[in-house]
Amino acid sequence: MKKIFIIGCGLLGSSLVRRIAKKKLAKKISIYEKSKSNIIKIKKLKLPVKFAKTLKDGVSNSDLIIFCTPMSEYKKLILKINNFISPNTIITDIGSAKMNSSKIIKKFLKNGINWIQSHPIAGSEVSGPEHGKENMFVDKWCVLIKDKKTNPKHLRFLNSFWRKVGSKTVLMSSEKHDQIFSITSHLPHLIAYNLVKSAKDYEKKIKLDLIKYSAGGLRDFSRIAASNEIMWRDIFFDNSYNISKTIDIFVKNLKDFKKDIQLKKNKSIINKLIKAKKVRSQIIKLKQDINKPDFGRSN
Amino acid sequence: MKKIFIIGCGLLGSSLVRRIAKKKLAKKISIYEKSKSNIIKIKKLKLPVKFAKTLKDGVSNSDLIIFCTPMSEYKKLILKINNFISPNTIITDIGSAKMNSSKIIKKFLKNGINWIQSHPIAGSEVSGPEHGKENMFVDKWCVLIKDKKTNPKHLRFLNSFWRKVGSKTVLMSSEKHDQIFSITSHLPHLIAYNLVKSAKDYEKKIKLDLIKYSAGGLRDFSRIAASNEIMWRDIFFDNSYNISKTIDIFVKNLKDFKKDIQLKKNKSIINKLIKAKKVRSQIIKLKQDINKPDFGRSN
Repeated sequence: MKKIFIIGCGLLGSSLVRRIAKKKLAKKISIYEKSKSNIIKIKKLKLPVKFAKTLKDGVSNSDLIIFCTPMSEYKKLILKINNFISPNTIITDIGSAKMNSSKIIKKFLKNGINWIQSHPIAGSEVSGPEHGKENMFVDKWCVLIKDKKTNPKHLRFLNSFWRKVGSKTVLMSSEKHDQIFSITSHLPHLIAYNLVKSAKDYEKKIKLDLIKYSAGGLRDFSRIAASNEIMWRDIFFDNSYNISKTIDIFVKNLKDFKKDIQLKKNKSIINKLIKAKKVRSQIIKLKQDINKPDFGRSN
Repeated sequence: MKKIFIIGCGLLGSSLVRRIAKKKLAKKISIYEKSKSNIIKIKKLKLPVKFAKTLKDGVSNSDLIIFCTPMSEYKKLILKINNFISPNTIITDIGSAKMNSSKIIKKFLKNGINWIQSHPIAGSEVSGPEHGKENMFVDKWCVLIKDKKTNPKHLRFLNSFWRKVGSKTVLMSSEKHDQIFSITSHLPHLIAYNLVKSAKDYEKKIKLDLIKYSAGGLRDFSRIAASNEIMWRDIFFDNSYNISKTIDIFVKNLKDFKKDIQLKKNKSIINKLIKAKKVRSQIIKLKQDINKPDFGRSN
């Protein structure tokens, strides 16, 4: 490719920059970044990019444009690039919820422009280009969203791009995507935020200093609950329909669990705990996590 | 000390063995282990212990006895050791819930015998002596349970023992202990088990293979939900009173969260997420977790 244009150069955008440069996937990487502090960091890091002075400058002559901003920015950006985007450019994004954003794209993107959505299953609780890593996407799943109108040639192009980045790719409809990730990612984040909030509420109520005893479990939730608030607000809003359904299942199960421990239902509890344990082995087998006790943490 | 007797030599018992030997805290370490597979492992590991042939053999002439078995074993063991335990021996345990076990001890332990409860905040999702580590308790909190009847001399003895092991010690009543750990440890475990169960339920319902996409959050919960089922059943049963209260707070907050995302209440959500994020910094500052993105996981 001659030119890739990345809009938003935070954790994931900068990781893409590093990987694209390392693998020489484009002759030129152009970026557009709003945040002044991120711009200073990118310069300090000497990332191999050209700063686009304007969106028009970045968009022009690009083979591929990758939106790496929060999803709530898409509409505004689409309305701007509509003025100068060419049908020869493929657009993608890396947002974590797809049904709502695909509607935004369909509604506001100029006719005849090609946007195929991506969702690489990668990230971290930290934000910013200083935390980006060249191997962020390597051996991770990247979901490509396919519907009836998806152009097979463009899909092959994007699929080939992610494979060169090092990801394993899989095709899905936006509906399936949002169902699956509501339970494997969105609900876990919401639950983590909710647990940390509940711990703070309880701390106030019982008037005991308790965060310092968080090593027994709470600390793991606190890591997830330290994730970027703009990104996660967007995901919770965009996929609220599916997340709400998973919340209902979760609450029903939680009430059963409570009854079981109050009534000391031995068989039922042991059965629950053993079944849950099996999922961990499945996850390790599928290479979705590190196979070391306590994630190999030394502390 | 001349002799320490450890009953139950799994993950934590074997970690104590390793540390006591390394720091030369006793001339002799005697252990009592029921599981044949654990006995084979301990022999293979060449842990520096004497196997007590009987409980009587282990108990006799011990300065310190440490119960490292599931809490549901205490009653049976107490009734046995009552026959030969001496008032010169200090007993402790490392159970994770204290109100119920302290009642068991008070009710069944022979009069005049000294038992002060301990709870070192250490462990892992894996079980068995092969996973024990010499530094398991180093720089970790160890809670010592103190009530009106606690003998100050015995307390000093036990406190000094844990400090020599490398732990930071703190005194608490069993009531306070069970309140604090209901939210920092017991609820997080119950929530993790419940989330994994809900994911499996949802998988069945939507008929989509989803565990392979667990890297976005679910995998972290699956680690906690892989913890030992006997140990956690005992904790859930023993502290069901406090855990139930925290479940109620959690469910109330979860319902508010659901409303907020359905009604797209921006301020309320952002406020929640930013507040939760601050707890992570607090935990890192208190050295309760490793200060690396993603726990420093390479995968």
